[in-house]
Amino acid sequence: MSEIAGVKIVGAGLIGTSIGLALRRENIPVWLENRSSTNLRLAIEYGAGAESIEVEPDLVIVCLPPDKTATQIAQELNLHPAAVVTDVASVKGAIREELKSLSDQTDRYIGSHPMAGRERGGAIAAQADLFFARPWVICNDSGSAESLDKIRQLVRLVGATAVELSVEEHDRAVALTSHMPQLISSILASELLDSDNQDLELGGQGLRDMTRIAASNPDLWTQIISKNSKSLAPLMRSMADRLNDAAEQIESVAGGGGLRGLYQLLTEGNDGVSRIPGKHGGKNRGYQTVVVMVDDKPGELARLLQEIGSIGVNIEDLRLEHSPGAQIGLAELDVLPESMETLAKELNKLGWRLA
Amino acid sequence: MSEIAGVKIVGAGLIGTSIGLALRRENIPVWLENRSSTNLRLAIEYGAGAESIEVEPDLVIVCLPPDKTATQIAQELNLHPAAVVTDVASVKGAIREELKSLSDQTDRYIGSHPMAGRERGGAIAAQADLFFARPWVICNDSGSAESLDKIRQLVRLVGATAVELSVEEHDRAVALTSHMPQLISSILASELLDSDNQDLELGGQGLRDMTRIAASNPDLWTQIISKNSKSLAPLMRSMADRLNDAAEQIESVAGGGGLRGLYQLLTEGNDGVSRIPGKHGGKNRGYQTVVVMVDDKPGELARLLQEIGSIGVNIEDLRLEHSPGAQIGLAELDVLPESMETLAKELNKLGWRLA
Repeated sequence: MSEIAGVKIVGAGLIGTSIGLALRRENIPVWLENRSSTNLRLAIEYGAGAESIEVEPDLVIVCLPPDKTATQIAQELNLHPAAVVTDVASVKGAIREELKSLSDQTDRYIGSHPMAGRERGGAIAAQADLFFARPWVICNDSGSAESLDKIRQLVRLVGATAVELSVEEHDRAVALTSHMPQLISSILASELLDSDNQDLELGGQGLRDMTRIAASNPDLWTQIISKNSKSLAPLMRSMADRLNDAAEQIESVAGGGGLRGLYQLLTEGNDGVSRIPGKHGGKNRGYQTVVVMVDDKPGELARLLQEIGSIGVNIEDLRLEHSPGAQIGLAELDVLPESMETLAKELNKLGWRLA
Repeated sequence: MSEIAGVKIVGAGLIGTSIGLALRRENIPVWLENRSSTNLRLAIEYGAGAESIEVEPDLVIVCLPPDKTATQIAQELNLHPAAVVTDVASVKGAIREELKSLSDQTDRYIGSHPMAGRERGGAIAAQADLFFARPWVICNDSGSAESLDKIRQLVRLVGATAVELSVEEHDRAVALTSHMPQLISSILASELLDSDNQDLELGGQGLRDMTRIAASNPDLWTQIISKNSKSLAPLMRSMADRLNDAAEQIESVAGGGGLRGLYQLLTEGNDGVSRIPGKHGGKNRGYQTVVVMVDDKPGELARLLQEIGSIGVNIEDLRLEHSPGAQIGLAELDVLPESMETLAKELNKLGWRLA
């Protein structure tokens, strides 16, 4: 297997620029292309690559929005007849379909998808470590073995964890874990449009969590969602059926029916959420939570965390919660169960108020 | 209006014990009752009240699960013929209905609902500040004016913000902002039950947010949800319709239709989420986010926050994000737009890596 000699990246947004940064750190020549010369210059100044390189690229990475991806892949396959071409779009089936009608050289194309987006976009948000230890899906059900090896090399070089799936498996997985949650969050948030301000003030952290991703970019998500219709639409219909079932169960209880169905639904929710891998890709380890009251002024949270550091306990996760209208916050600290008692005892000693 | 002379609290769980703590801080005699003597003893040791008081209570607060609330209210109205009785259940219409058939003294009953639950329950999680600056709904559409005044006093004493609503308005508001999000989170999480482990590893922070409250107590939520069927079931059906509409739109796009419907839905989601009041009960102030890479070892986050404290910038919100498999985390710091530049510049100077 030959080492990667030179890479051409088309599209110097968040993903493209970050890949460039990661590859340059490995001293691989990177040729950057971008429609807007301002963004291109920024990416080059960042050190993500150059406007030209001396070698003919043996790998081309298309980092464009989903609706521009297939056309560009076809073009690059033509322009660089010896290069392997990949893309980073978050839908894979629709792009492969589109590409079929545009190119007959698709054995040099391998679809891939780094799971490392951010809410912020653009070269300005790029970082060489963006992909470090994150999953990077490689679609291994088409393209030549040689092409596949090249993409595996790329994933290894940027420090990501390769997850090999078929195009269909990929699209089904992201429909479930990303596209459906996005759409549901958006719909739920849009239901708030006609409600009273006072009603919204009654909403707590749960509502905030459930609607956070509804703030995502509608242009990008319109493309993503519309291109994954085959996997996503059935999931949405099944969710809709389950919402209707739940409505029926609720009404049946009100009419004197049993609580069992509703209870079972909520219990299955408990079981489902416990399956989501926790921190560091491991299983959810069942952290214990210590809640500390923190005055809402500069330095207070720092002082708390510094004192926790001196206690020697590692914080696995941290959430801040604010009382509406209050100048006081709650810091919820997740720790390993075995650290819980020590932490609570020592914090008490140090004068912190715990819940 | 007479001052509150003595309070009887029935049920020494999180809410009951916290109310007791808050009232004792104001030197009001508190009589605690609880079925389990272990929990009762714990609450008394906490300082939330006593097993008996010398005055006849003029206010009784029933802090029991929804299914035990109405019966207890009726009993207390009987036992204490001069006292005002309230409850703290998160549904109000069903309880008033139930109560009608149990008591003819309901002019001394005022339903109320402090919006201050926690994921953790029990006396052990109680805190005197639990209600501080949080909304506390008072149902002002039944009961005598004198009774209403007593409950307003209670809310003021514990430091909460009174929100006066009719029973129907309350039930509709919590159906939208609390019960529907809970049910959708549970159903979404339960959809994960049959998926592959590998699929779940592709899920990011969005999926975690959308399913966090699915970990809530199924016993309690079965009761809450089933008792708010009148407001909740129509909302669930309307959500189901909108999910089906979205599925149709997605498929129509795939079949060559326009993107406008889908785009509009996502834009409405943007608008809806921006209506949720942010920190401190104010409007969402559009914070800027600074993302900093933090080594995953004790003390690192503390050091970051301490240095931010010394820069003099206040953090409005903070989220930790972990790369799966990596020993490194990202701290997302929300700050006021005017603080953004200073913070980024100073952190860079201090050697922190920003995204």
